[in-house]
Amino acid sequence: MARKYVIGLDYGTESGRALLVAVDNGEEVATAVQSYPDGVIDVKLPGSGKRLEPDWALQNPRDYLYVVDQTIPKVLKESGVRGEDVVGIGTDFTSCTMLPIDRNGTPLCMKPEFADNPHAWVKLWKHHAAQPEADLINEVARKRGEDFLARYGGKISSEWFFPKALQILNEAPEIYDAADRLLEAGDWIVLQLCGVEKRNACAAGYKAIWDEGYPSKEFFKALHPRFENVVAEKLSEEIYPNGVKAGGLLPEIANRVGIRPGTAVAVGGVDAHVAVPAATVTTGGKMVMIMGTSICHMVCGKTKKVVDGQCGVVKEGILPGYYGFEAGQTAVGDIFAWFVENCVPAWVADDAKKEGTDVHGYLSKHAADLEVGESGVLCLDWWNGNRSILVNADLTGLMVGMTLTTTPAEMYRAIVESTAFGTNKIIKQFQESGVPIEELYACGGLPGKNPLLMQIFADVTNRKIKVSASDQTVALGAAMWGAVAAGAAAGGYDDITHAAAKMARVRDESFVPNAKNNAMYQKLFAEYERLHDLFGRGVDPVMRNLKQIKLSVRGERIA
Amino acid sequence: MARKYVIGLDYGTESGRALLVAVDNGEEVATAVQSYPDGVIDVKLPGSGKRLEPDWALQNPRDYLYVVDQTIPKVLKESGVRGEDVVGIGTDFTSCTMLPIDRNGTPLCMKPEFADNPHAWVKLWKHHAAQPEADLINEVARKRGEDFLARYGGKISSEWFFPKALQILNEAPEIYDAADRLLEAGDWIVLQLCGVEKRNACAAGYKAIWDEGYPSKEFFKALHPRFENVVAEKLSEEIYPNGVKAGGLLPEIANRVGIRPGTAVAVGGVDAHVAVPAATVTTGGKMVMIMGTSICHMVCGKTKKVVDGQCGVVKEGILPGYYGFEAGQTAVGDIFAWFVENCVPAWVADDAKKEGTDVHGYLSKHAADLEVGESGVLCLDWWNGNRSILVNADLTGLMVGMTLTTTPAEMYRAIVESTAFGTNKIIKQFQESGVPIEELYACGGLPGKNPLLMQIFADVTNRKIKVSASDQTVALGAAMWGAVAAGAAAGGYDDITHAAAKMARVRDESFVPNAKNNAMYQKLFAEYERLHDLFGRGVDPVMRNLKQIKLSVRGERIA
Repeated sequence: MARKYVIGLDYGTESGRALLVAVDNGEEVATAVQSYPDGVIDVKLPGSGKRLEPDWALQNPRDYLYVVDQTIPKVLKESGVRGEDVVGIGTDFTSCTMLPIDRNGTPLCMKPEFADNPHAWVKLWKHHAAQPEADLINEVARKRGEDFLARYGGKISSEWFFPKALQILNEAPEIYDAADRLLEAGDWIVLQLCGVEKRNACAAGYKAIWDEGYPSKEFFKALHPRFENVVAEKLSEEIYPNGVKAGGLLPEIANRVGIRPGTAVAVGGVDAHVAVPAATVTTGGKMVMIMGTSICHMVCGKTKKVVDGQCGVVKEGILPGYYGFEAGQTAVGDIFAWFVENCVPAWVADDAKKEGTDVHGYLSKHAADLEVGESGVLCLDWWNGNRSILVNADLTGLMVGMTLTTTPAEMYRAIVESTAFGTNKIIKQFQESGVPIEELYACGGLPGKNPLLMQIFADVTNRKIKVSASDQTVALGAAMWGAVAAGAAAGGYDDITHAAAKMARVRDESFVPNAKNNAMYQKLFAEYERLHDLFGRGVDPVMRNLKQIKLSVRGERIA
Repeated sequence: MARKYVIGLDYGTESGRALLVAVDNGEEVATAVQSYPDGVIDVKLPGSGKRLEPDWALQNPRDYLYVVDQTIPKVLKESGVRGEDVVGIGTDFTSCTMLPIDRNGTPLCMKPEFADNPHAWVKLWKHHAAQPEADLINEVARKRGEDFLARYGGKISSEWFFPKALQILNEAPEIYDAADRLLEAGDWIVLQLCGVEKRNACAAGYKAIWDEGYPSKEFFKALHPRFENVVAEKLSEEIYPNGVKAGGLLPEIANRVGIRPGTAVAVGGVDAHVAVPAATVTTGGKMVMIMGTSICHMVCGKTKKVVDGQCGVVKEGILPGYYGFEAGQTAVGDIFAWFVENCVPAWVADDAKKEGTDVHGYLSKHAADLEVGESGVLCLDWWNGNRSILVNADLTGLMVGMTLTTTPAEMYRAIVESTAFGTNKIIKQFQESGVPIEELYACGGLPGKNPLLMQIFADVTNRKIKVSASDQTVALGAAMWGAVAAGAAAGGYDDITHAAAKMARVRDESFVPNAKNNAMYQKLFAEYERLHDLFGRGVDPVMRNLKQIKLSVRGERIA
């Protein structure tokens, strides 16, 4: 019998990717990336050229289909794999990225009568213009004592589903009326592939306040009289966990891309969450960190717990049979990039050249040469606010301990350490809330290129860190869910644990905590924690005050 | 009658300067600088090559005489002024810079039998190896309840006279025994010029705990049995204020340099303090800031007051008829230099070039373009500790409010503002302690090259700042005291007020506070003040803890 393959379709912010994976052992035989032709739409609408207001971020759903048509034929051609040997497709998507569609599943923005209305387009996860709606949702939920707030760390984000839906109703009731459905883009692409709408539990749970049911009609009514029946009118109460087969690939698409009609298509997934089994994690107690510009932390547990400042807890939101917990740091690689762009003097590049390396190599080497605690410099890693565990976007960065002899490498190391302290604080919070975390797993862009960072994370958290072997852990995860959905056709992985055992791997080398470094980091972490509470819990209001002053001055300047 | 001139001899850390000044109107007709051939001796002794321990900083007194011989003939030659028309010489010196001498005034280091003993040399002001002695002095003074501590902000510095003297006794009793006198270098150069030892009140008061008398014999005895009679054996109880004539120039020097024997030589002065009348200030309520790598703040008042964290209060230490108060910030220009060296990325230099300027010009321009409060960034200016008002060398720098869009110009402005907040805190402390400050006067290297800094100081302090017209305010001050000492020969300035009225000037342009900026700075200063107390008064111990960790790690690394 011929070797069988699955395809993971991974929809990111700027582009989509197809990863062709052998079902028997997870070998990644080919990959292809396609940028979205319209990218992130944040200035003006394609076609009409209509200007967008600040904080808007849209996408063109046509681009998602274009990715299918471009990348699947490419991976087949590149690998020489026959289309008939592809037995399943899994997808993952950014979230909450959502759109209004008509009865046929056609996005309203594709209909001429709505094409010049921004609300007819896909609202990308980082569309931030629904903040007033998010504020209202939080206020009403607090007043009504809605217990879902605690599941989401006390706050619903403007990036999530209902703020975006309510913004449509508030600002474009004609779009709201015309929409047969409001849908996650990750569920829409599945609908396009197989003609079946099956909403995924992960996006519903983490982004649409779903917990084996949505908030009450009374709650929605308190937001807006016409929002009372949003669930019945625009959503669906049927929610499916990862690994369920949504349907078979529609013939017209199958024929276009060269694989068999009826090929199993899995229920959609969310990007970070599908990475968990692809990093080999299929049980509780193991935290997976997707480490890039930010860090997304995911861990599973057998019992539902409320953890201060978590992004959400969702039953089977990550793995079947487990509650999935998510937390996050809003900026990690982004802070390092800011530092390198704005704070590294020219002589570092010169010295780096003499040492036969580049700026990053120089900083890593000289930061690694420092003993823990030697620099006397400490930071709070809040350059982009704090998601977990403080859920406060108004917090800002802090650096303390500089003297006239402080070097760029010392400041760089202090910034790296602060992001590890931030993760450690999250781990501590989970532990103390009854969600044990014994081991760490890492994937994403950072682990491969920054071993110093990984060692510091191991030393600070005092936990071994295993690193996913795949450079495309997210796409591999999508493919693995596709294999599970394919069932017998894929050799009969009856659950993700079996799929992970064969298809997922970690690298041979892991990062093992150094006891001496950890002992010193415990002292430094005590300092971090005290400052964390001092500035993060409002004991000293300097960050909030500076931000208010800044906003008032900028407001005046514009006016 | 021919126009008359005075010479100001200004002894700095690296070099000495002669400034030839017309007595009638203060015109600076010529200046000459001579580097000290042995500079700052901090690695090994000249001649013997004996290695010095860390924290030592010595000088060679021969270099001070070399400055006389080199610079005076130069200014005469350059200006064409006849030596017979020079009627007075005033000097100023770094302090406390001190040395042991024999009965003839010869420094012990010039005697072959002592030349290889480091304690026989001049201890420069920044010799920091007497810290154990300073610690003992402070401890004993606290235990005995010595009221002089309050006059010096609660702490005697290791840089001052008695820690250095006690270090000689502790480590080199043979030098202590051989010394006929222990003397400020500023008094020694006067002794060399005119053969008379007349100790100046300024150095005695600010650096040798003199307040119309030294501490008691019992106090000194408590430090070391043999230190009981240090005053009687090694010092002098006769102390002279600025403007008194010490004596006439000795013939052998007069002949060497080409001016008349017997030319009036004024009692010595301390560098910062002689600048006060040269900045036109001869009354109370006007604070003079010597602004350079650090800031020295001086103000006079009619009543003796104890001000928290002042460097000292000395009767007639600055101006006759007034108590002179001194305070200081340990690093100002030094922090800007650190920032430019360590934190300004290469693209700033590129953009600066495109804008036709340099890095400093770029930062100033783009920082000036910011509205007050717009950046959201705030600093504590403690990169080199805090002298006034906290008297704590263990404090360190802090920066808060950074986001992913924070720019180098924003950070630069925040650092500049923090130094202005530091000065404002000092002014506030003086005001609240009953020493009024109505106006500010600036001199030193910074005012001329950094108008943005000056405007920020005016806006933050809400006070007009006048800037000394002279680029050599300190040397001009020394010359003015020389004119007063010369009396009738110099046209009869009977006091410094008259001399200042004719010889000192401020620039036409001054820096006037902008009311709107000050209103916003009051808000930011409230934030600064709260952080100042939070970290500076030990409410949160992070700075001390980080420093202790740093020292322990570095200690371990060396061991």
